Amino acid sequence: MIDDLDFISTCDVPGPTKENIRAIILYKSEVTSDETVVDIGCGTGGITCEFAQRAKKVISIDKNPEAINITKKNLNKFNLENNVDLICNDGINALKNIEDIDIGVVGGSGRELEKILELLDSKLKPNGRIIITAILVDTKVEAVNKLKDLGYNPKFVEVNISKGRILDRGIMMTSENPIAIITAKKRG
Amino acid sequence: MIDDLDFISTCDVPGPTKENIRAIILYKSEVTSDETVVDIGCGTGGITCEFAQRAKKVISIDKNPEAINITKKNLNKFNLENNVDLICNDGINALKNIEDIDIGVVGGSGRELEKILELLDSKLKPNGRIIITAILVDTKVEAVNKLKDLGYNPKFVEVNISKGRILDRGIMMTSENPIAIITAKKRG
Amino acid sequence: MIDDLDFISTCDVPGPTKENIRAIILYKSEVTSDETVVDIGCGTGGITCEFAQRAKKVISIDKNPEAINITKKNLNKFNLENNVDLICNDGINALKNIEDIDIGVVGGSGRELEKILELLDSKLKPNGRIIITAILVDTKVEAVNKLKDLGYNPKFVEVNISKGRILDRGIMMTSENPIAIITAKKRG
Amino acid sequence: MIDDLDFISTCDVPGPTKENIRAIILYKSEVTSDETVVDIGCGTGGITCEFAQRAKKVISIDKNPEAINITKKNLNKFNLENNVDLICNDGINALKNIEDIDIGVVGGSGRELEKILELLDSKLKPNGRIIITAILVDTKVEAVNKLKDLGYNPKFVEVNISKGRILDRGIMMTSENPIAIITAKKRG
Ligand SMILES: Nc1ncnc2c1ncn2[C@@H]1O[C@H](CSCC[C@H](N)C(=O)O)[C@@H](O)[C@H]1O
Ligand SMILES: Nc1ncnc2c1ncn2[C@@H]1O[C@H](CSCC[C@H](N)C(=O)O)[C@@H](O)[C@H]1O
Ligand SMILES: Nc1ncnc2c1ncn2[C@@H]1O[C@H](CSCC[C@H](N)C(=O)O)[C@@H](O)[C@H]1O
Ligand SMILES: Nc1ncnc2c1ncn2[C@@H]1O[C@H](CSCC[C@H](N)C(=O)O)[C@@H](O)[C@H]1O
Repeated sequence: MIDDLDFISTCDVPGPTKENIRAIILYKSEVTSDETVVDIGCGTGGITCEFAQRAKKVISIDKNPEAINITKKNLNKFNLENNVDLICNDGINALKNIEDIDIGVVGGSGRELEKILELLDSKLKPNGRIIITAILVDTKVEAVNKLKDLGYNPKFVEVNISKGRILDRGIMMTSENPIAIITAKKRG
Repeated sequence: MIDDLDFISTCDVPGPTKENIRAIILYKSEVTSDETVVDIGCGTGGITCEFAQRAKKVISIDKNPEAINITKKNLNKFNLENNVDLICNDGINALKNIEDIDIGVVGGSGRELEKILELLDSKLKPNGRIIITAILVDTKVEAVNKLKDLGYNPKFVEVNISKGRILDRGIMMTSENPIAIITAKKRG
Repeated sequence: MIDDLDFISTCDVPGPTKENIRAIILYKSEVTSDETVVDIGCGTGGITCEFAQRAKKVISIDKNPEAINITKKNLNKFNLENNVDLICNDGINALKNIEDIDIGVVGGSGRELEKILELLDSKLKPNGRIIITAILVDTKVEAVNKLKDLGYNPKFVEVNISKGRILDRGIMMTSENPIAIITAKKRG
Repeated sequence: MIDDLDFISTCDVPGPTKENIRAIILYKSEVTSDETVVDIGCGTGGITCEFAQRAKKVISIDKNPEAINITKKNLNKFNLENNVDLICNDGINALKNIEDIDIGVVGGSGRELEKILELLDSKLKPNGRIIITAILVDTKVEAVNKLKDLGYNPKFVEVNISKGRILDRGIMMTSENPIAIITAKKRG
């Protein structure tokens, strides 16, 4: 378990994906220790650091060099560098050179979600899983529709988390922003 | 309708109560133009400014002089000073001198919620309404239990609001913190 | 204030719009007693009954005769029939014959939201307001985009309500489904 | 990953704890394959079935024979009976005979939460974890306060999940009831 606050982070790079969202993603991923995970839009490395502890290999992609840099720092901080490849490139370009993916996580896609999903689908092994986190309402719809087009049966969950700070005078709630997690599994 | 951002506010004083919460409070209050409202813990004046537009008279109480000051500024900004009395005092002391209340709103009570509710109950007219906003989980329970003790049949609603900012690339959601609205009506 | 359970309702017709959502809609509508409201997709009459108490005139439209029937029953139950016209027709056909709308509420549109908004916009008076409730994620995006196209500056709020039942052993929370309220005001 | 609908369930027994809540509990538990988990108030077996896949041993307690029965059926369905002991008894009585607990989950406690937490604390190994799920607002406060009294530094998270059904006409959201997850770790 990694606390949100334990990640090194910077204003220029979004993330890390919040703790409880990471928990749900891990559970839905059904990752095993002999699988390969691709994290497209790795940002601060929140998702990458989780899968690095549980998968055989993680390939983390971000078009922003600053994100690759921060992800490297976090992997280093948590001693998780061994099984992670970092690629500083656009998701589409990077995916072209990757094969045999067990799990593809899309944490950021700019305006290229559809193309990324097409390509990811073509590189995904049978029984492979796709996991998309979406914060824009538009992305939620786009992700579901594209997965349907590609022949998947997507699942959709919206998560609203509030954390309670335990003060002397009581439990004070603070909300995190809502996030949708869209998942799909490739036919075996 | 008053936008949250149109209130003058300061870091030292909580509030204003957010727009959609004010909307729900107004609706549940069933306020009419010949009624007297007491706003205990008026803070920034969010609730006070709303009732000033709809009630005959509003009596607004806060123990923090800064809150009274800000509330005055907001009443002035929205031209609502005519029917509002401002009292800088603890809720308990202030309530002692007030009679014939139609609606009592408790937006802040320190650790004196139970005493304030007892006193408010004793000053409330038949068919009068009590409305409590609570952000601490503990206060939510305390409010319900005290109202039950006083013979009321309280209603409880927890409100989670997310606002969407309309950006070029889509609708980006931001959550407000959860708040409970506890209401009760005195027997006629 | 009308309790959700006080409406006559039937399985065949959606609604009534829940109490706290009605509260927020009323507040944002800024309805006055000399205005005309059109309720497109009036369903059970939840919105219609609220505006009937506050506007000069309400025109309520539903393509489902069962909905018109239930709305009539609820208006009758709450003694609100005087200033309401009921039209059993598709929103588009009905709107063609209506002019000078102050407030247009869209509670249901089938797959015709864009056309309904275009037509509503053309019939809306300066400073008129449009209010859309959306339960499908897709409709939320569609509503915002169409309003932007029509030159509006839409506001978007997503509401998650949980109600607490006050049991002997404590406060038991039950959630209502999330709903978005999208509003826009026509230039004066 | 176990889908909510894959559990055998009955109206008489609450549960299973919903999928995304189970995911968060598992993540926060940091369970390892050489640890012992006690599930107090195992209900339908939702939590028990998850830990049975990941811990060395699970001891599941429920005072309701029907709950023990259903839990057994679910363990059997998922082939997870090997490392689970089922005890039909009150949590307090059952805990008295259990030692060296790594993880204690409290999914139900009647009105005995404080006593259960005291006893659990006394049987918990250093670095052991306590996880409480609470649906009553009162229980949330009680759990936090008792853990504080016992010298813990509790964490509190409230989870609001909405699931999207993918229909032809769009994504239709349905909310699950809010649930709080309160966790604490014993000093090492
Ligand atoms: N087309 C694209 N190719 C590669 N990276 C992209 C991309 N579009 C957006 N991104 C990246 O996606 C990231 C989204 S933020 C992701 C946060 C991450 N899941 C964490 O837990 O830390 C950003 O860093 C952004 O640079
Ligand atoms: N016992 C008490 N008597 C009077 N005021 C109190 C009080 N305990 C807390 N308060 C006040 O309660 C306020 C809570 S903030 C209230 C915000 C307000 N409803 C708005 O919309 O602006 C604070 O200003 C605090 O000073
Ligand atoms: N194109 C259209 N024209 C007219 N009515 C429509 C329509 N598309 C959907 N509807 C109606 O929209 C309604 C949505 S349910 C609305 C509930 C209502 N706001 C209440 O508070 O009771 C349904 O009754 C449906 O028949
Ligand atoms: N004092 C007590 N001792 C033992 N069981 C108790 C108890 N108080 C309540 N319970 C049990 O707690 C259960 C709560 S429901 C728990 C659901 C479970 N987590 C799941 O995932 O399926 C009920 O079955 C109830 O019988």
